[in-house]
Amino acid sequence: MRTSKYLLSTLKETPNDAEIVSHQLMLRAGMIRKLASGLYTWLPTGLRVLQKVENIVREEMNNAGAVETLMPVVQPSELWHETGRWDKFGPELLRIADRHDRPFVLGPTHEEVITDMVRNEVKSYKQLPLNLYQIQTKFRDEVRPRFGVMRSREFIMKDAYSFHIDRESLEATYQDMHTAYCNIFSRMGLDFRPVLADSGAIGGSGSQEFHVLAESGEDLIAFSTESDYAANIEKAEALAPATDRAAPTQEMTLVDTPDAKTIAELVEQFDLAIEKTVKTLFVKASDESESPLIALIIRGDHELNEVKAENLPQVAAPLEFAGEEEIRALIGAGPGSLGPVNLKVPFIVDRSVAVMSDFGAGANIDGKHYFGINWGRDVALGQTEDLRNVTEGDPSPCGKGTLLLKRGIEVGHIFQLGKNYSESMKATVLGPDGKSVVMEMGCYGIGCTRVVAAAIEQNNDKYGIIWPDAIAPFEVAIVPMNMHKSERVQQAAEKLYSELKALGVDVLFDDRKERPGVMFSDMELIGVPHTIIIGDRSMDEGNFEYKNRRSGEKSPVAIDDVVAFIQQQLSQA
Amino acid sequence: MRTSKYLLSTLKETPNDAEIVSHQLMLRAGMIRKLASGLYTWLPTGLRVLQKVENIVREEMNNAGAVETLMPVVQPSELWHETGRWDKFGPELLRIADRHDRPFVLGPTHEEVITDMVRNEVKSYKQLPLNLYQIQTKFRDEVRPRFGVMRSREFIMKDAYSFHIDRESLEATYQDMHTAYCNIFSRMGLDFRPVLADSGAIGGSGSQEFHVLAESGEDLIAFSTESDYAANIEKAEALAPATDRAAPTQEMTLVDTPDAKTIAELVEQFDLAIEKTVKTLFVKASDESESPLIALIIRGDHELNEVKAENLPQVAAPLEFAGEEEIRALIGAGPGSLGPVNLKVPFIVDRSVAVMSDFGAGANIDGKHYFGINWGRDVALGQTEDLRNVTEGDPSPCGKGTLLLKRGIEVGHIFQLGKNYSESMKATVLGPDGKSVVMEMGCYGIGCTRVVAAAIEQNNDKYGIIWPDAIAPFEVAIVPMNMHKSERVQQAAEKLYSELKALGVDVLFDDRKERPGVMFSDMELIGVPHTIIIGDRSMDEGNFEYKNRRSGEKSPVAIDDVVAFIQQQLSQA
Repeated sequence: MRTSKYLLSTLKETPNDAEIVSHQLMLRAGMIRKLASGLYTWLPTGLRVLQKVENIVREEMNNAGAVETLMPVVQPSELWHETGRWDKFGPELLRIADRHDRPFVLGPTHEEVITDMVRNEVKSYKQLPLNLYQIQTKFRDEVRPRFGVMRSREFIMKDAYSFHIDRESLEATYQDMHTAYCNIFSRMGLDFRPVLADSGAIGGSGSQEFHVLAESGEDLIAFSTESDYAANIEKAEALAPATDRAAPTQEMTLVDTPDAKTIAELVEQFDLAIEKTVKTLFVKASDESESPLIALIIRGDHELNEVKAENLPQVAAPLEFAGEEEIRALIGAGPGSLGPVNLKVPFIVDRSVAVMSDFGAGANIDGKHYFGINWGRDVALGQTEDLRNVTEGDPSPCGKGTLLLKRGIEVGHIFQLGKNYSESMKATVLGPDGKSVVMEMGCYGIGCTRVVAAAIEQNNDKYGIIWPDAIAPFEVAIVPMNMHKSERVQQAAEKLYSELKALGVDVLFDDRKERPGVMFSDMELIGVPHTIIIGDRSMDEGNFEYKNRRSGEKSPVAIDDVVAFIQQQLSQA
Repeated sequence: MRTSKYLLSTLKETPNDAEIVSHQLMLRAGMIRKLASGLYTWLPTGLRVLQKVENIVREEMNNAGAVETLMPVVQPSELWHETGRWDKFGPELLRIADRHDRPFVLGPTHEEVITDMVRNEVKSYKQLPLNLYQIQTKFRDEVRPRFGVMRSREFIMKDAYSFHIDRESLEATYQDMHTAYCNIFSRMGLDFRPVLADSGAIGGSGSQEFHVLAESGEDLIAFSTESDYAANIEKAEALAPATDRAAPTQEMTLVDTPDAKTIAELVEQFDLAIEKTVKTLFVKASDESESPLIALIIRGDHELNEVKAENLPQVAAPLEFAGEEEIRALIGAGPGSLGPVNLKVPFIVDRSVAVMSDFGAGANIDGKHYFGINWGRDVALGQTEDLRNVTEGDPSPCGKGTLLLKRGIEVGHIFQLGKNYSESMKATVLGPDGKSVVMEMGCYGIGCTRVVAAAIEQNNDKYGIIWPDAIAPFEVAIVPMNMHKSERVQQAAEKLYSELKALGVDVLFDDRKERPGVMFSDMELIGVPHTIIIGDRSMDEGNFEYKNRRSGEKSPVAIDDVVAFIQQQLSQA
């Protein structure tokens, strides 16, 4: 490609409305342009990267035995009624009507459509297992689209759906997909981790996320220092403390705490250790519970894990915190003075709280706390659960090492759906014994457009993007200096361009009449991994100059060796 | 690909609701499935063909210097207001609202979005010409979707848009696109023709359609018997007859014709030559005309060309025929008795009518006609235009030969838009003299999903589809007979499958436990061009059997030569 026939569209200034570095760099490098909130046009440089991502995904899915299909973006509402998601899905599901006023949706995902297709086409267990995927445009009407293509409304996903006669077959394909995903992200040159993810009501070990590690990631991931264990913090188990509860050493006393509405104020004003305090949080109870609210008690220095809380049968899903008014009506005290002693609603305590002694908590009377509380003596302990987020240094749930926390960007998810969709949609096949069997299903997603942004979050510096070779918009840039004044430079540049193109190298030839500085900074900004600089001065010595984008190092390369040198650089990637 | 791991989904029966052969065969061959009216899922076999079509389009567009982009499916209404198409476009434009009730459309085309992008990104004539394309999902809310993917609501188009500093540059790119389109359809192995198309208000030779020839085509195309001239019948000029008008031989007489409401009845009842009659058609006049209606007069055996009529300045666009009531109110007679003599509204006569003499026409009195009408003597001739469809045998407008008519399916269109969009959207660049210039634009479409159906309309027989090699879902099928009983057959089939795969041949290995007859008819139905049949009997003689789908011929091929033989077959295509 010649820049003169291309739409480079780089920007010098960082656009004001871009908060994260990938969004800034995608705008500056001329990869995307905003059309409307959460809607982006992919300019040529962006699309080249996106297509390389898609092609790697496609090749590895095919290698893993998945078969490609393509389902419509626009889906009839009927199928969404069958699974109940027409009602359950929030306003992210964009509901539309056609000219005849028939209801449709813009597909945010395709479980309904694929399950409908497979129940019509697949009749016998002999046709299973079957793993079908597509790379297709999706739409989610995010209330606040942000971070460019990281959380846009229209985006491109690879979504695969597998169908099985039994759980064993599902688990085998799930493992194949795990391997395929590792191959995909490895080939892209990304530093990623498969991590255990919460699988909600379905349970089991049937859900893993793939995260690109980056400091800007929205998710926290817990790693073991001494094993392969990695889990989304949503999922990572906080083990029960290995130490037993210490015996009481204090009497329980009622203390006036009129100015201590928060744990921080309590600790500060009464010189308490924060590990000797608890937070009592009120959430809506599920229908299972007799009380409208339920209290969750965690240590003062811990954070509630909302996913763990929501998965408890007594707690309403989605999780909803009780308002002050509702709490006050039931308890007679506000949120700053709550605690387990004399509490009128059921409560669940975190494992770490269960081993506390001589601790402080609200007295369920405004402006008062109890200090020196001890379980059993002052209040019955009751139900104990894992309610909190793990923290760095916690023992790893795998039994080896302690936990480290890192940030990640979720780019893929593999999930054992079981019979979630196939049951409600009556997707059955005839089994070996001639009886009808509801199929087991798995689903496997990769956010192709999001991968592009995540790769940039992980690979950039102050000059721009640093693409891994496999997903770079161009592998090699040719930058001729003052080509329009030097016929020798021009001829050398044209010759190298032809030779590299003929070898199938993805090369950008910067043939603009621009100052070398402009050309260098554009090539750095868009992140071309390998640049060959052609100028009269180095040619006098029989050389071109090579610059590596990642290391920043420059070195002379003999003109006659340059093609072989480039081929060697590319094969090392 | 092994059929055992694939979703073949062929059907024995022809589905009832499929009217044309491509729709029937796409369903039977397991290429598509209907999700809802005008919405189709592409099953694996269909998608393989579609992707080959897309890849040929992409390669040739790239070769022609066009640069790929990707614009959103969902487009904000504001841009459509800028060009006025929000109001002008009919209900085919699906207007939707997001969660905040902001209006959007599902893009049926992307002129607005690309022009907006280019006006923002391109500032100088030095960045021109620029030809940007995408391969993207479109949506047109057809009132009656039909013929499968031939006229569906959701479909995939390649749409390109070029931007220029002047008309000359536009014309050069237009020619490049013409060449690229010829390359594209030639590479696909299709019998196609570029034909002149009506370009409406823009005029000139600035619009050509590309048609795949097929008897089922919706369009009629006029060809010269002695030159390359080809035009859509909408556009094909009917030359003025070379002969002069004959002198009158009859007096004009008023005749009672109470039972002759149509030309057919008139000709039948009064033994007239149909070439001696005219039809007088009333259409709504444009604002230019003082009369609300205008009459168009064509010979009794000719058909009105509605596009030619609509392009006349006196005629309202879109063309609208007047109703009987409206005509009667103005003329005092009904549609069966209209004619030029004593007509109270302006009329335009077709070129063929202008040379008629001694002809019959309605008398503008119910139940009466004039016979023996002669121009000049009985009524002034007035404005003469080309109003009719050409017919076979008409002289070709190119000056050489006569016209033949064939049916075609429009699969592509290239169009010199001029400043149609750039003017209303103020898409300007700075010209060489530093002054702002509105860009010239071209647009170039290919209906990728429609090409698949058109190719089938042109290439099928009673057994199924006959794919050209370049767009076949698989190039080669391996059909082993009774493989599950013969280890020798199985080993030979596995070996050939591995060898062909290693060479990059697109091969389908039918490893199902099915009777040979089922396998043969499936491979014929899905249209695999080359089949290798492996059986014990031919292996006893050291051979496999080769079958060519198109010729139907079978021939033995020595086992040792089969790979070279296949390579030779594929290179000939």
